[in-house]
Amino acid sequence: MEKKKIRIGNAVTEYYFNATLSKLSEVADKKYSVVLTDENIYRHYEKQLKGWNTIVLKPGEEFKLQQTADAVVDSLIEMEADRKTTLIGIGGGVITDLTGYVGAIYMRGIRVGFVPTSLLAMVDASIGGKNGVDVGVYKNLVGTIRQPAFLFFDVGLLKTLPESEWQNGFAEIIKHACIRDAVMFRELAAHDINWYKSKKTALAALVRRNALLKTKVVQGDETEQGDRKLLNFGHTLGHALENQFELSHGQAVSIGMTYAAHLSESLAGFRGRAKVVDLIEKYGLPTYAEFDRTKVFDVLKHDKKRERDSLHYILLNRIGKGVIQTLPLSQVKLIIEQL
Amino acid sequence: MEKKKIRIGNAVTEYYFNATLSKLSEVADKKYSVVLTDENIYRHYEKQLKGWNTIVLKPGEEFKLQQTADAVVDSLIEMEADRKTTLIGIGGGVITDLTGYVGAIYMRGIRVGFVPTSLLAMVDASIGGKNGVDVGVYKNLVGTIRQPAFLFFDVGLLKTLPESEWQNGFAEIIKHACIRDAVMFRELAAHDINWYKSKKTALAALVRRNALLKTKVVQGDETEQGDRKLLNFGHTLGHALENQFELSHGQAVSIGMTYAAHLSESLAGFRGRAKVVDLIEKYGLPTYAEFDRTKVFDVLKHDKKRERDSLHYILLNRIGKGVIQTLPLSQVKLIIEQL
Repeated sequence: MEKKKIRIGNAVTEYYFNATLSKLSEVADKKYSVVLTDENIYRHYEKQLKGWNTIVLKPGEEFKLQQTADAVVDSLIEMEADRKTTLIGIGGGVITDLTGYVGAIYMRGIRVGFVPTSLLAMVDASIGGKNGVDVGVYKNLVGTIRQPAFLFFDVGLLKTLPESEWQNGFAEIIKHACIRDAVMFRELAAHDINWYKSKKTALAALVRRNALLKTKVVQGDETEQGDRKLLNFGHTLGHALENQFELSHGQAVSIGMTYAAHLSESLAGFRGRAKVVDLIEKYGLPTYAEFDRTKVFDVLKHDKKRERDSLHYILLNRIGKGVIQTLPLSQVKLIIEQL
Repeated sequence: MEKKKIRIGNAVTEYYFNATLSKLSEVADKKYSVVLTDENIYRHYEKQLKGWNTIVLKPGEEFKLQQTADAVVDSLIEMEADRKTTLIGIGGGVITDLTGYVGAIYMRGIRVGFVPTSLLAMVDASIGGKNGVDVGVYKNLVGTIRQPAFLFFDVGLLKTLPESEWQNGFAEIIKHACIRDAVMFRELAAHDINWYKSKKTALAALVRRNALLKTKVVQGDETEQGDRKLLNFGHTLGHALENQFELSHGQAVSIGMTYAAHLSESLAGFRGRAKVVDLIEKYGLPTYAEFDRTKVFDVLKHDKKRERDSLHYILLNRIGKGVIQTLPLSQVKLIIEQL
């Protein structure tokens, strides 16, 4: 187990790489911790979670709601959790987002730790302190930005992951490569999901590389005034699509990245569009899609990234180099109609 | 109008003293602001609020709930409020607490401003960034600490205040005097509520003195690891009483201060107990009360100020000098039984 302390803003987060769930008690005190997880995770790891105080939620994004946060608060009161309690989220992005949010508002903030169990949560959702719940069709409309006290990475937890979840994770990994890491882009192009599944060391290294890449972006801009916006590559259109269709987050982002690559070609002279599209396809993710442009634009108008009458759109100058472009809503409308 | 910029932690708050509600548009842009207020305030100041986007809530602490926050979030979505919107709370502590809380979680935090309309909110509730909602019998169990962008003080708004609300405000003013300001304690002892009501300049000076006193305490300790706890003088028992009986906040805190003065006498050699009790009575506030000790202890156990098996209790060394004492829960139980 490798331990690394990283400062973001005023907070210090402990990163534990190459960790094992059964060693969690070396990092947090069972007596003063409450584990928040879902039924799927609990069923898989009941043995390892023996002796921990646990709150077990129904699994699924459809429960990432204020009502669920309210129920967790009620459970914490019942358990007499106080300001010295650590709330540990063990699960995918839904669980880490809920844990971070409840931890931020319970008694005006208690210590929080994350044990991400999906590839997406390991490389993206658990990192950077953003948390929240969905409100109607708007993802993460309510939440805070607050760094966890620790992050605990055990890639062994990925072995029960369904194929679609591997794809979700790789969508964000491809995103990271596109905006910041041309070397990783080439590594990804040389392999595929099955290769990483069969090479635990390479997978652990990939998770670590992505966790630290995202951390570095967030360190420079915790509150998303500048470079952190780069992480929204593929996400502006992606979120709008995810709300309208039966798409996974990775699928929606992949379609978003495909269109963003096209936009980059026409607005920023980007020449790697075909390579990006090929890589997305290589990892089993979709690229082009039919959608109702008016509906999608309507959701885009409510995107948190909107600022009055314009929207920040992330484009690529080249592979490994994302840039932030501010586009007037009227131009976004035109672009979407022409996509 | 006097403008003062004060830094607390990473945030800078603009304080406007001797301000007038009709000049609010000099401080915030009507087009990009949403005013959150209650029916009582709205009825009184409808004219001054013309042209502002407003959300009007039912008045009362019984609506300081997550459900109300949820409803405000829904209204903000409908109004297409975005990250550049300023949410302005015009009202007493319930409104400023709700405004601060919703402003902290909507889109992971938007700009917030407060126009306190009660004496209590002016000298206490609106200052220091604590916000929140009640959960069951537990006051402010859910919330955050986040400084507002501005505070706007118009003592003219107090002229419609009922007598009980004047008492509520003076309870906190007496608290400030007890823990930090012996000079103000003597000033208070020389006057009474009616005197301050009739002297607008003295009242404005008193509000300013208290706002800045509290600000200074918070500046030194935003997250309440140390000296900020002093502001809980009278509040530990006070909150427990407020939950159990039909007491106003000021009444509950006054009884809490009375018992804390007695405790200070027996545990810290405090000699000003009679002066404190006299001052509380002079401002029309209650001092001693009959209450169910078991019930009150049960609520105390859930107090946010509890840390594992002990509770921070604020005592006085002398008038103007509060100190933090950590007492084991078992001792607190004994003390309460003997009070």
